Amino acid sequence: MEMTDRFLRACRREPVDRTPVWFMRQAGRYMAEYRAIRAKHTLLEICSQPDLAAEVTLQPVRAFGVDAAILFADILLPLIPMGIQLEFAAGEGPVIHNPIRTPADVAALRPVDPRESLGHVLEAVRLVRRELEYTGVQPSHHPQGLVLNAPPLIGFAGAPFTLASYILEGGSSRNYVKAKSLMYRDPQMWHALMGKLARVVADYLVAQVEAGAQAVQLFDSWVGALGPDDYREYVLPHSQLILREVSATGVPVIHFGTDTATLLPLMKEAGGDVIGLDWRTPLDWGWARVGADSAVQGNLDPVALLAEAPRPELERRVRAILDQAAGRPGHIFNLGHGILPGTPVENVKAVVEMVHEYSVPEVA
Amino acid sequence: MEMTDRFLRACRREPVDRTPVWFMRQAGRYMAEYRAIRAKHTLLEICSQPDLAAEVTLQPVRAFGVDAAILFADILLPLIPMGIQLEFAAGEGPVIHNPIRTPADVAALRPVDPRESLGHVLEAVRLVRRELEYTGVQPSHHPQGLVLNAPPLIGFAGAPFTLASYILEGGSSRNYVKAKSLMYRDPQMWHALMGKLARVVADYLVAQVEAGAQAVQLFDSWVGALGPDDYREYVLPHSQLILREVSATGVPVIHFGTDTATLLPLMKEAGGDVIGLDWRTPLDWGWARVGADSAVQGNLDPVALLAEAPRPELERRVRAILDQAAGRPGHIFNLGHGILPGTPVENVKAVVEMVHEYSVPEVA
Repeated sequence: MEMTDRFLRACRREPVDRTPVWFMRQAGRYMAEYRAIRAKHTLLEICSQPDLAAEVTLQPVRAFGVDAAILFADILLPLIPMGIQLEFAAGEGPVIHNPIRTPADVAALRPVDPRESLGHVLEAVRLVRRELEYTGVQPSHHPQGLVLNAPPLIGFAGAPFTLASYILEGGSSRNYVKAKSLMYRDPQMWHALMGKLARVVADYLVAQVEAGAQAVQLFDSWVGALGPDDYREYVLPHSQLILREVSATGVPVIHFGTDTATLLPLMKEAGGDVIGLDWRTPLDWGWARVGADSAVQGNLDPVALLAEAPRPELERRVRAILDQAAGRPGHIFNLGHGILPGTPVENVKAVVEMVHEYSVPEVA
Repeated sequence: MEMTDRFLRACRREPVDRTPVWFMRQAGRYMAEYRAIRAKHTLLEICSQPDLAAEVTLQPVRAFGVDAAILFADILLPLIPMGIQLEFAAGEGPVIHNPIRTPADVAALRPVDPRESLGHVLEAVRLVRRELEYTGVQPSHHPQGLVLNAPPLIGFAGAPFTLASYILEGGSSRNYVKAKSLMYRDPQMWHALMGKLARVVADYLVAQVEAGAQAVQLFDSWVGALGPDDYREYVLPHSQLILREVSATGVPVIHFGTDTATLLPLMKEAGGDVIGLDWRTPLDWGWARVGADSAVQGNLDPVALLAEAPRPELERRVRAILDQAAGRPGHIFNLGHGILPGTPVENVKAVVEMVHEYSVPEVA
């Protein structure tokens, strides 16, 4: 028996036949299929053309038999209709040409109706669902040689803190000096900005669910730059609004960040059925911190997946994580952050197999 | 009464008249006095000319009345006599022209007698001690207008993981891909490299103590890139060797890292009288994790010191940290990491005053 909904069951902490596994950034540059498309299109073109976004979304599902698809998109997309001028400079990551500096800049950010200005993303959601439902998936690789049924599709968005950090810093950052300085200097402007972002993100995620996303993940990738007191005051209310509205749709919600060891209880308070753990947080310790009434997702170090280490070393690490989960319902295997460029596809393939092989429950 | 040794007493968890305060990177670009010297000399010149290094070391002591001086040096200095070609490129941080790639590269790293090849650093230690002992310190600013006696001098070095990360990556890093990949791919080469680094660092710190350093800090600034299992296997034995040898000299030892919430018990196991906490770790929570038989140092967010926020906001943050220490002996006030460029000197001055004013113990 193949359980096609083992990912959704695990989100709800129901027993599963095998631990579900997918990878953050599972579609991307490390795959030849992706690079072939990327050679002809910019990142923003792929994101804005639904057929390309759908195709790229399906590539890792076909190649590895992962238990969930995740929409190919960028967390910064909803900033564009808000009025942010965004560019993906080669080798530099995102560059924002009009970073937010003043209360007037915040006031000028436009509200967004995702059905209008992010319609291409919603169309990609519909395309992927249709593709998965009607054709099923013929995986090019599967250990038992079975044909898999369609795995569910995860939608996602960036959380307000992480989005705010980009539009204040003007791009990636090491110390988040501008974002934190604003919090400390002008909390009113900070909250105005976060409130606007939260409104857009909540509507965007709900629209993805309405278009067919069967779960969603909120990426607060950089929130671990903060300590718990700052998180509680400057972030929690805004993430909570989003997580509450999305949960009301009934789909499972994953709440993810990195460097969050001291934030975990507050992230759980903010919301989400599943809390994402990074590799710094041992899975059992992290699960105890968020409580047994949450599911958890994680947490192999992306560098362990990238490293050309002997296969037994990779296997040892995968098993250690599964052992920490101890077969308790509610574990979704993933990395602690996204797949890194240069990761060998054979490693990705191997980890999917290892997780599925090793996690077969013992027969009572 | 002024206690000139309140820093050393706090390291030993003895009662103090006021909580001692100093700042990582308290000498540096944010001070006009430093920029005046830096305008005429490169960073490596300042580090290698004992009179310049001593002068820069004393600048923040005179300016702010901090409770400890810390030698002005760079954690990468001991790599130079090992054979590493190091350059501080303008605006880019350190660049290493011959990063370690093969076991032969590790074998070629030279042993170091710090009394010979790092004699300029030891001479700077002697100069600072002499200056402090014979002349005392006439602080240009002190809230009560008192003349302070000489505060003690802290020596320091980078820990093996942090040094290894630079010489493997070739400079600063975001994901530590090369360092971690080596661990996973070739643990033997990794341990050979770490063993060589640990030998040099231990000898270097002991030599600093012999030259007059009254305490030392081991900076494992980037070790928080690892989870606890990797820390235990790949880092702990090497840091432990250093911390054991330095502790045998009898001076207090501070063991510092950032992003270490899940590593704290293991860092304590590795050694050190004082464990440094970053701002992500609430001081009381972190202290409970390392245990009441350790002192702790920290942990104001460096961005809170930099931000041009209203003074009451800064004061609120300083008080919150002191309240978490709850007057328990063994707290040294500091940032959670080094002072950032652009930090206003008035903020630094103000925090020294706040800590001293607010931490006067209640009379029984």
